[in-house]
Amino acid sequence: MILLTRKAEFSAAHYYWNEAWSAEENARVFGKCANRNGHGHNYTLEVTVAGDVDPVTGFVVDLKQLKDVMEREVVSVFDHRHLNLEVPDFKTAIPTTENIAVAAWKRLEGKIPGKARLHRVRVYEMPDLFADYFGG
Amino acid sequence: MILLTRKAEFSAAHYYWNEAWSAEENARVFGKCANRNGHGHNYTLEVTVAGDVDPVTGFVVDLKQLKDVMEREVVSVFDHRHLNLEVPDFKTAIPTTENIAVAAWKRLEGKIPGKARLHRVRVYEMPDLFADYFGG
Amino acid sequence: MILLTRKAEFSAAHYYWNEAWSAEENARVFGKCANRNGHGHNYTLEVTVAGDVDPVTGFVVDLKQLKDVMEREVVSVFDHRHLNLEVPDFKTAIPTTENIAVAAWKRLEGKIPGKARLHRVRVYEMPDLFADYFGG
Amino acid sequence: MILLTRKAEFSAAHYYWNEAWSAEENARVFGKCANRNGHGHNYTLEVTVAGDVDPVTGFVVDLKQLKDVMEREVVSVFDHRHLNLEVPDFKTAIPTTENIAVAAWKRLEGKIPGKARLHRVRVYEMPDLFADYFGG
Amino acid sequence: MILLTRKAEFSAAHYYWNEAWSAEENARVFGKCANRNGHGHNYTLEVTVAGDVDPVTGFVVDLKQLKDVMEREVVSVFDHRHLNLEVPDFKTAIPTTENIAVAAWKRLEGKIPGKARLHRVRVYEMPDLFADYFGG
Amino acid sequence: MILLTRKAEFSAAHYYWNEAWSAEENARVFGKCANRNGHGHNYTLEVTVAGDVDPVTGFVVDLKQLKDVMEREVVSVFDHRHLNLEVPDFKTAIPTTENIAVAAWKRLEGKIPGKARLHRVRVYEMPDLFADYFGG
Repeated sequence: MILLTRKAEFSAAHYYWNEAWSAEENARVFGKCANRNGHGHNYTLEVTVAGDVDPVTGFVVDLKQLKDVMEREVVSVFDHRHLNLEVPDFKTAIPTTENIAVAAWKRLEGKIPGKARLHRVRVYEMPDLFADYFGG
Repeated sequence: MILLTRKAEFSAAHYYWNEAWSAEENARVFGKCANRNGHGHNYTLEVTVAGDVDPVTGFVVDLKQLKDVMEREVVSVFDHRHLNLEVPDFKTAIPTTENIAVAAWKRLEGKIPGKARLHRVRVYEMPDLFADYFGG
Repeated sequence: MILLTRKAEFSAAHYYWNEAWSAEENARVFGKCANRNGHGHNYTLEVTVAGDVDPVTGFVVDLKQLKDVMEREVVSVFDHRHLNLEVPDFKTAIPTTENIAVAAWKRLEGKIPGKARLHRVRVYEMPDLFADYFGG
Repeated sequence: MILLTRKAEFSAAHYYWNEAWSAEENARVFGKCANRNGHGHNYTLEVTVAGDVDPVTGFVVDLKQLKDVMEREVVSVFDHRHLNLEVPDFKTAIPTTENIAVAAWKRLEGKIPGKARLHRVRVYEMPDLFADYFGG
Repeated sequence: MILLTRKAEFSAAHYYWNEAWSAEENARVFGKCANRNGHGHNYTLEVTVAGDVDPVTGFVVDLKQLKDVMEREVVSVFDHRHLNLEVPDFKTAIPTTENIAVAAWKRLEGKIPGKARLHRVRVYEMPDLFADYFGG
Repeated sequence: MILLTRKAEFSAAHYYWNEAWSAEENARVFGKCANRNGHGHNYTLEVTVAGDVDPVTGFVVDLKQLKDVMEREVVSVFDHRHLNLEVPDFKTAIPTTENIAVAAWKRLEGKIPGKARLHRVRVYEMPDLFADYFGG
């Protein structure tokens, strides 16, 4: 068993806001992130798949196909978007780093090409903050 | 003469839009960046000052004071803001990397502590895209 | 279950020395690191917590509170200090990367805010050398 | 139990080619990587060992000895080489990132100095692509 | 006047060899780089253009057009190629970092879109080695 | 004319202290850096030389010789040392980033191999703080 990880990037706007709370409560919990004009980040998406090395190709997964799946399922949906306003995954879930990782997992699950399986999704919001999701 | 450079970071949302143009023209020139819901970035601000080394302190500039000026004049104004909607510098100027560098220069000019002078402002929108402004 | 990781940095001096050994033995085992004038590093502390995403906040852990705990329990104690001379954790333990990770774990254990639990402490002494401790 | 990771770098040329296939099939599967003149990369080798901290030295593994083993067993063999043409590990296995990680593991297994054991080999082909092998 | 810099990457193989010298002389001067099987690198190309900010777009240069020129003129020619064997720029010039920067400059000169002018080409062979060429 | 830059690293301890001042004055100006037990950093030394490309070698400077000069003149003197206590350059000058850059310049000036000349010395104390010295 081997793990293969590929990274991609997207830029998006977001804010943190719980509709059930007052503006004061949102400001208290989310601080500057509660500004509803939004702010944004350069996100890094790191997708890890697990599997055996195919002796014919030397690959756990076809790199071009993996890149295409990441682009089609996640990057093209999130990139240059306002996550709260335009991406349905965040109609109810607040687009925290944790929830973005979970949303990316759900979009990628079952779509990994060939025999490899999705092992981990890591999302960096900034170089010093990231979330890992293993699907359960 | 020596140069001393200090970096700081801020996260902000923006979009590219020229009010004098049709939606089609904005989309043609600015592509995905014309999405008026906004997207965002982790920006890096790099401020370079020039001067002589003070033989008493070994400093071209007091590092703590430089950090405070950068925070007060630029980072606290741009961070966690929507540049188009909330920062007056971009009421008329489109918040491109070039214009953000010029705006940061204008905010910092004349505010460098001690005898050093502002030499360059560099702004990274992403690790692979940056603008340098030298004030003229 | 999801993992959330946050980084912080501190700068410190240290040296490697075993009091039970002769100077020759210390030099043989620790090489340049046995210089008792000390040398130093920019350390990176990476703290990973594990837990469920709170559906109300979208957080595994409150980011501001986590940052404050890391600052109070570790960074403010180690930063701009000589680890051998000033930090009690290293009165008997040599401040190797491994022992710094263990010391940081002990300082953070039981202090993680909310329902998340401490999962891993990683310490980088340099970009090409790091230790991971999982608490057991 | 603690993990200690050390990095090293090497530069090498390679191409992807399956002798059992036609040129068309190689081009279809491997794309630009099937160019038999070769292309190359700056690889990063990350070796993680696991063990207990020796209370006498504060080390899981002697850092100098670990560096020497990595240099002797892997870096000196792969660095400034054409992997397909000059390194026997790739006489039959295609030098993909996955297979380079497996080859490095085989070269390092049983050679870790002291009581630590080899835990993981990670190989980066580029900053956005890497493979992890745990030996089974 | 403002500078705008954009980065791109390519992977290529090369070796250092002066046909006028003996094998011994090549080995003496170029060391491991004289291995004619070739080795390789992940190169980073950094293109800086200079100009005034267009008040209509906020751009010194159209970013999409600049990216396309870099891709068409340099990256597509050098990427996944053996520089000595396949790229005519290096039929006579040895593909050192210096000569790659000069070759990229010659390929880009006069092709910068709009009113901006080419200011500098930087080429990284590795993160710790790079050359800058300003065209004269 | 072309510029060629090479990087090297060293780890050292230092503190900021002006003997002519009281402890209170040192603490007021230098803050945490005035702790005389010392703290430390991973420094990066970046040496840039300028010259013409030798048509015979493709080099502005022999890379191996440049590396050796940097190692012999600067890195071996500063690495794993306490700059205030062990390096004569800092008997009178406070080892600020600015003064370390000046000291490295003085050690390298006139020692660049071949026809290239020393153009710039950059010293990073941390990734977000660096000084540039051009020799005058």
